[in-house]
Amino acid sequence: MFKSVDMAADVLKNQNEICLLCHMSPDGDTLGSAFAIFYALKSLGKKCFVDCADDFPKKFHYIYPSKMDKFKPKHYVTVDVADVKLLGKEQRDLPYDLCIDHHEMNRVSAKQKCIDMNAAATAEIVYDILKKMEIIFDKTIANCLYTGICTDTGCFKFSNTSAKTHRIAADLIDLKAESEKINFKLFEEKSKARLCLEKQVLENLEYYFNDRCTLVFVTKKMLKEAGADDSTFEGIPSIVRCPTGVEIGITVKECDIDIYKVSVRTVENFDAAEFCGIFGGGGHKMAAGFKIKGSALEVKRKILQAVEGKIIG
Amino acid sequence: MFKSVDMAADVLKNQNEICLLCHMSPDGDTLGSAFAIFYALKSLGKKCFVDCADDFPKKFHYIYPSKMDKFKPKHYVTVDVADVKLLGKEQRDLPYDLCIDHHEMNRVSAKQKCIDMNAAATAEIVYDILKKMEIIFDKTIANCLYTGICTDTGCFKFSNTSAKTHRIAADLIDLKAESEKINFKLFEEKSKARLCLEKQVLENLEYYFNDRCTLVFVTKKMLKEAGADDSTFEGIPSIVRCPTGVEIGITVKECDIDIYKVSVRTVENFDAAEFCGIFGGGGHKMAAGFKIKGSALEVKRKILQAVEGKIIG
Repeated sequence: MFKSVDMAADVLKNQNEICLLCHMSPDGDTLGSAFAIFYALKSLGKKCFVDCADDFPKKFHYIYPSKMDKFKPKHYVTVDVADVKLLGKEQRDLPYDLCIDHHEMNRVSAKQKCIDMNAAATAEIVYDILKKMEIIFDKTIANCLYTGICTDTGCFKFSNTSAKTHRIAADLIDLKAESEKINFKLFEEKSKARLCLEKQVLENLEYYFNDRCTLVFVTKKMLKEAGADDSTFEGIPSIVRCPTGVEIGITVKECDIDIYKVSVRTVENFDAAEFCGIFGGGGHKMAAGFKIKGSALEVKRKILQAVEGKIIG
Repeated sequence: MFKSVDMAADVLKNQNEICLLCHMSPDGDTLGSAFAIFYALKSLGKKCFVDCADDFPKKFHYIYPSKMDKFKPKHYVTVDVADVKLLGKEQRDLPYDLCIDHHEMNRVSAKQKCIDMNAAATAEIVYDILKKMEIIFDKTIANCLYTGICTDTGCFKFSNTSAKTHRIAADLIDLKAESEKINFKLFEEKSKARLCLEKQVLENLEYYFNDRCTLVFVTKKMLKEAGADDSTFEGIPSIVRCPTGVEIGITVKECDIDIYKVSVRTVENFDAAEFCGIFGGGGHKMAAGFKIKGSALEVKRKILQAVEGKIIG
């Protein structure tokens, strides 16, 4: 790991005119990590920009600059991108110079790869890289990295949180990361739409296999009724997994007619990534996902059949 | 502060036959802190026990021993107790030798006081005291202190979380604190009763003063319908404060006929302890409470009148 951090620091130091690529449906880790590098490279006088197939969500407004000039880059760096499928179509077949990521199954073909599966967030790896580059961390960089770490650890709650995660958080707070404001924005504050969606999820939650499995359909109608958009939905899958005794919580979100995005959350000893692999998806051990086509009934049947195989088998 | 930590360490080292007192409705901080001291004193061969007017909640079963012998103690130490009112009646007029606490307005009269308002949790202070006593931290002590810190910081989310808080958490994880299990138990896992109660709260939430204030009554009927007990209720007040734009979230819990316990959660710049002081209560800047008597309508009118004074005034 230390070697690949050194290598990544060298690549970033020696290159210029860099495009930093975030995954689609950008979250706090891909954005926080990419923009931390962005501000670091800017502080070295380099030309760079952050690109993403989707818009940056408003709630992360404190991370990205109000204006950012794009240009034809000489180099591409993927940040927190586990698979090129998670990039926009036009970003999928590029010669990536560097891939920085913490996902267990990284499938990006890049000239150089800096992967640490033990890092709770890509932001942890970026912290090490920027330290190695001897970047002076200002409050903005500290806020970016703190956001990445909090996002991917559920505010230091998930199993990926290590002693190192806490020590980095302590450093970032010393560097004036606005932890209080960020945590409030990410984990406390909820829109009326979100609260309505949570109420709907609690009302529609179904229990299977002696309450060892929960499943909920989040339909377009429900989302519309709540006034919810994609970012409203973030974190909902964790709610589905939370009842006592549940080993796998499944959230089936309607994306289009007969197209569903499934988010799976599990407890220890139930490998979510492996489960999602059955349907061609992937992710982490306790949080993974996949896409599936079919009618609601078909989709439900297939998923529950797969759960049965895991729970009974 | 350092001096009072030294003093507290001396008091605990030099005394024997000690009773450690927790506050009523014991939470993770009063229990985690008291039992950390308990195990530390035991490791020094001392006679001691932890006492509380209420039963220890089951969810903290990993903190307390299955059996603990009580005896007539020579010394009393209050742990995380802001006011003697928070002790059981029989524990209220004792000669306390030491008071260890982090509440802003500590009203316990003790021979010696070790108070640090800047500590996120009493467990942080206890960490310093036990280090000073050169206690060897085993996993059990690490679990106790981690529980205290997580409870009072909402898992490192609240404004009281400092760089020091994170560094202590890192040390406790190095000392094998089972952070994953504890966080799951405290913050992820929810009983069906709890989920039912949350649904009811979301359904009954009232908005006042242009959505700057929320208020919800949690009646005995609602609690009964949900199958909820006191510990089910813990954390509900945070939900009430979370809608975007809300400055004060008020949870009015029916304790008995015309007797209510009010929990107040606020955002920055709205002093919850000061607000609750109007009704003879107290607590922290963003989380405080009080008890009030009267009919539901009277209670609501009085509270909203006081909010109006703060919001408009």
